[in-house]
Parts: sequence; C-alpha cells; structure tokens
Amino acid sequence: MATRVERVMAALECRGLTQMIVSDPKSIWYLTGVDVEPYERLFAFCVRTNGKHTFFLNRLYNVTDTGYEEVWFSDTDDAIGMIAEKIDGTAALGIDKEWRATFLIPLMERCPRMRPVLASDCVDDCRAVKDEEEIRKMREASRINDEVNRLASEYVKIGMTEKEVAAFIDREYLKRGCSGPSFTTIVSFGANAADPHHEPDDTVLREGDCVLLDMGCVKDRYCSDMTRTFFCGEPTDEQKRIHDLVREANERAEAMIRPGVRFCDIDAVAREHIAAAGYGEYFNHRLGHFIGQTDHEKGDVSSANTAVAKPGMIFSIEPGVYLAGNFGVRVEDLVLVTEDGCDLLNREDHHWRIVGK
Amino acid sequence: MATRVERVMAALECRGLTQMIVSDPKSIWYLTGVDVEPYERLFAFCVRTNGKHTFFLNRLYNVTDTGYEEVWFSDTDDAIGMIAEKIDGTAALGIDKEWRATFLIPLMERCPRMRPVLASDCVDDCRAVKDEEEIRKMREASRINDEVNRLASEYVKIGMTEKEVAAFIDREYLKRGCSGPSFTTIVSFGANAADPHHEPDDTVLREGDCVLLDMGCVKDRYCSDMTRTFFCGEPTDEQKRIHDLVREANERAEAMIRPGVRFCDIDAVAREHIAAAGYGEYFNHRLGHFIGQTDHEKGDVSSANTAVAKPGMIFSIEPGVYLAGNFGVRVEDLVLVTEDGCDLLNREDHHWRIVGK
Repeated sequence: MATRVERVMAALECRGLTQMIVSDPKSIWYLTGVDVEPYERLFAFCVRTNGKHTFFLNRLYNVTDTGYEEVWFSDTDDAIGMIAEKIDGTAALGIDKEWRATFLIPLMERCPRMRPVLASDCVDDCRAVKDEEEIRKMREASRINDEVNRLASEYVKIGMTEKEVAAFIDREYLKRGCSGPSFTTIVSFGANAADPHHEPDDTVLREGDCVLLDMGCVKDRYCSDMTRTFFCGEPTDEQKRIHDLVREANERAEAMIRPGVRFCDIDAVAREHIAAAGYGEYFNHRLGHFIGQTDHEKGDVSSANTAVAKPGMIFSIEPGVYLAGNFGVRVEDLVLVTEDGCDLLNREDHHWRIVGK
Repeated sequence: MATRVERVMAALECRGLTQMIVSDPKSIWYLTGVDVEPYERLFAFCVRTNGKHTFFLNRLYNVTDTGYEEVWFSDTDDAIGMIAEKIDGTAALGIDKEWRATFLIPLMERCPRMRPVLASDCVDDCRAVKDEEEIRKMREASRINDEVNRLASEYVKIGMTEKEVAAFIDREYLKRGCSGPSFTTIVSFGANAADPHHEPDDTVLREGDCVLLDMGCVKDRYCSDMTRTFFCGEPTDEQKRIHDLVREANERAEAMIRPGVRFCDIDAVAREHIAAAGYGEYFNHRLGHFIGQTDHEKGDVSSANTAVAKPGMIFSIEPGVYLAGNFGVRVEDLVLVTEDGCDLLNREDHHWRIVGK
C-alpha cells in the first residue's frame, strides 16, 4: 500500500500540487488499509508530496495505529478548523471528487487564499489499474455473478414478480459469501426493460416478455456487474434481430480491446454497429464504465474519453437497445485488459435463451 | 409539494440568497415528486426566489413533465456549462450540502465571481418537520421495526452467527413490503457490541454474551431505526447495572421532550445520568439524530445543538455504554414531537430479556 501512496504523491507533483484531501473511504482504504464507514461524518486523509500525511478521525471510528499522523475529533469539535490548521492555507489544495459541499465550503471560508483543485484523478487513475490481488478478487466476484445469473435464469417463471427474482438473486449472493449486491439488482420484464435503470417492482412475468437481468455482487470488497437478456417464450423476429444486434455490438467491442486502444474508439465500434441497423437513437448511454470497489468508478467507455486502455484496467461493455413501451435488450460483461488483449471476466453465453417456462 | 418549495424560497430570502442548487435526490423528490437515482451523474434542481425554477436532467433519467423548466443533457455534454449559463454567475449561489466536489469545483471555475454558500438548511429545516403523510409512513416503518425486532430476539440462538441473524432481520423486512434495511443491520454479540458501528460478522453467539440489535427498515421511502440489547443467559450484576443505567438515561431524555426544549438539554439529561454513575467516558457519541427519508438527516440531539424541538420533528434517542473488550448496551427509540409532548414510535419494551436459549 505504501507503493500506492507513492504513486499518488507522484501524480500530485505532476499536477503541481503539494497537498490533497482524500475523502472517499474506498480510496483511503486502498491507500492505507484503514477501513471506516463514516456515514455523514468527516473522514479524511491528507496526502502531502513531502511524505508527511495526516489522518482526520472521529473518535467514534474503530481505528488503531494508522502509521500516520492522526488528528482526532469528536462530534462536537470543530473538525474543519482542525483541517484548516494542518493544511497550507495559502497553497492550492487537491480535493477528492467525492468530498461534499458540507465540508468543502466551510474549509474554503476558513482558508480564503486556498485554491481548491479537483484532484481525484491522482488517486482514481491508480485505482483504475488493478493489481494482481484486485484482479483475483474481481475474477471471483464475476465467477459468482455468472453462476447466480445462470441460476436466476432457471429460477424465473411465468407469474413471478420482478421483486421475487431480485430477492432470489440477492439471497444467492449472500449464500456465496458476498456482502450483497453491488447495486440494486435490476430485473426487468417486458416494457420495463426499455428503462435502463428500472427498479424491480410487482410486475408479473408474462408470455412474450423479455427478461433482463442486470446484476452484480460485492465479494471481498470488489464488485461484479453483468447483464443478460432472455425471452419468455419464442421471441418475435424483431426481438431476435435486436438481441443479435446488441450481442454483436458487445462482441465487436470486446474483440478490439487491447492496450493502446482508445475508449472512444471502442464505444464507436459498438455504437456504429447499432446505428447502421437503424437503432442508434435507441442506444442512449455510454458503452461502459470502470468498476472496482464500487460499481461505477472513475473512467468510462464513451465518445468523450480519448484515453487509452492499459493492462490491469477492468470495465464493463454493455451496449443496449431500448424500445419504449415494448422491450429492451442489454448484454454486458466485465473485461480485463491484459498485456496483449483482454480477458472476459464473465463467461456466461451472450445469446438469448427461452426462460420462464 | 408546491408549499414545500415556497417554504424553501422563503428560507432563501431570509438568508439573502436568490438561487440555490438542490442536488440531494431525496430533497428533490420532497420538493417536486420527481424521483431519480442519479448514481454518479449530475442531477440538480435550481430553486430561485423569483419562482422560476430549473431542472438539470440527464437523458437517461426516466422523467416526464416535471412542471418546471428542464435542461436536458447526455453523458457527453458539458452539463456544468449548462448550469453556469442558467445561474446568475455574479451572485451568491446556495449549495446543497450533499453536492460533491466533482460538480462544485468545476462550476466555481466557470463562474469565478459566484460565491458558493452552504444553504442546505433552507431545505433540511423543512424536511426536519414532518407533515401528516410523512408521520403516518414513519409510524408504520417503526411498527414493522418493533415487530421484526421482537421476532429477531426470539430467533437468535446460541451457535448462530451475527450474519445469520442480520440476514433474518433483512428477510423479515422484505416480507413486510419494505424496500430493505435503512442502514446495514447491526447485530453485535459480546465484546463486538462495544463498537457502536460494528458490522455483523461470523462471530458465534455464546452463553454470557450481550446481544445488541440496532436495526431499521425503509417502508414507502421512510426509515425506522431502533436498538434493543438483550443477554444470552442470566446477566452479571455489572451487565444488569449498565443496562438499567442506559435504559434510565433513555427514559429520562424521552420524558422531557416537548416543543421548546433545547436538544442540548435533552442530550445533557441522558449524559449526566450516565456520567453520575461513573460511565460518562463510555458514552462517546451524541444522544440522537434526525431521520426521515434517510437514516441520518440533518439535525442531532447533542451538546452542540442549541435549537429547540418543534412539533412534527422525529429523531432518535439512543444512549449507550461501551466497555471495550467486554460488552456494550444501547437502547434506542424514534420519538415524534407532538403539540404538547412526544410520542414514541417504538413500543417494544426497553428492559433486557434473556434470549438465545
């Protein structure tokens, strides 16, 4: 973990910064191994390029011996004042993108000459490239996800509600030692699948519906995330055609992933394939997102991202086509960039199957 | 809901503000009924004292006809630039305490003459006073919580793990139509209960342990939160004495709650009772917190809060004593301030019982 802090210090220097407030608990754990769920309370780790780092800790946190300077406060102390005293209030201060205005604005008022600079990239670009231990955990989380996706596709039956199937998936995660789903499990039947972020409700599965399962678990702190779309009964020609189209977009994108490829170019290949078939306007989101300790981490596979893939990066590839009032299809895997190509963390078949009978 | 927006506009005027970015999805729902889970994406509602309010919406959100001006953007648009164009960049801008630096800092860079002012209180002070519909929902969430707490105290048995009991509680919530727990269900056996924020692990219940259940559910968007502490087998004299002490602190505090009483005075009564018995240093957190759509909302019952209770406010009263390496006791209810006193939303008995056999 000391190596990780050194990478952040080097990144700060490149940005011309001498100090940064890291506040995302997952970034702090990543850098120091100190594991705190602060809820609405202040929790911060100040990284300095001179190597003198400081923790700001509420006495409620169950933390011992961080190995760094520690500033402790209680609920009634002026914790922001304590930070103001410790930082260089005349210099620029790197700020974590997750830091909430409830802390940032009072600190700015205390240190009117301090210039806040969004500096999360200094940490997030490290987090985006997974090390061996992280890759091992993410492979395992996706292995479980494949298994539970398969079970859920066998479990779903005509007459069940979306909520019942989502509860099944969440239970199966717990049985396998996961701490839970990595986001609210999405089970969408029929027209509900045309909303990419639909939340499971009391909709009942009926013959002719599509069945979209977008799901992920958290295992040993790391997330998985996958989507498969099935049909309840023989699909219509349009349903088949759209599913093939989305699957091909997924596979074309995945086939080109290797170090050095730009994310916008990966996005373009999938998007153009869907657009060429006349469905471009129905694919209304980015192709993918980075993932790790949280389901959505910094970095995406979109037309706006001109950065290139590097070995160790893990992200989703998830094209979709959404026909409002009718149905939706999405096919999603997690992909690991390797030295000379990529590895799919999800191994479940991409094709549609008939389920629910 | 229009009334709620008007209350916020009036509060802004009192603060000398003409505009505010509301970004907490729960505040936006509270004010407009528009229900979006934006995850890491931008979602904002700009309230202006001139009555011209504006929504900033990603095309991914499933939103139709908000009744307000709508500015739509996609993932690749410059959404911050769109906000910068719409606000008065030369005036102070109220900011939601939940707004993350990832949006606030770029907006400040775009509008260097704009002064950000933490203005959440303008919304949060409205949210703190529940209306009839909200009170009805919160009574129901606490009724369910009482019921599941009772069931869990009967379910727990020697040899079970904390995780098993927490999973039981979470399942019972779902059976009763809750969307889930309102925070990670806390089940703490023995010495684990000395950490107020302990997360359930594989610790097994043994004779002589205390059993602390700190739990809450979300029903129809609103939260409950309660704690009861039991003993597995006949408690020692010290365990009994501490439990009585904490229960009395809880009951003394609750007995004094009525409109006009200061929160710091409620906190003091409980704290002094525990301190008088020599355990002051082992009660290391505030007495309570406000609650509503989230488990912890703005407002607390602590020595730092000199505000007074008003009818319609709902908050927790949760004194505790934590003896590291040994055991911990907490007794927590939700309390509603009424016109002439208060109502406990939790009706389960405060006393210890023997469980686990």
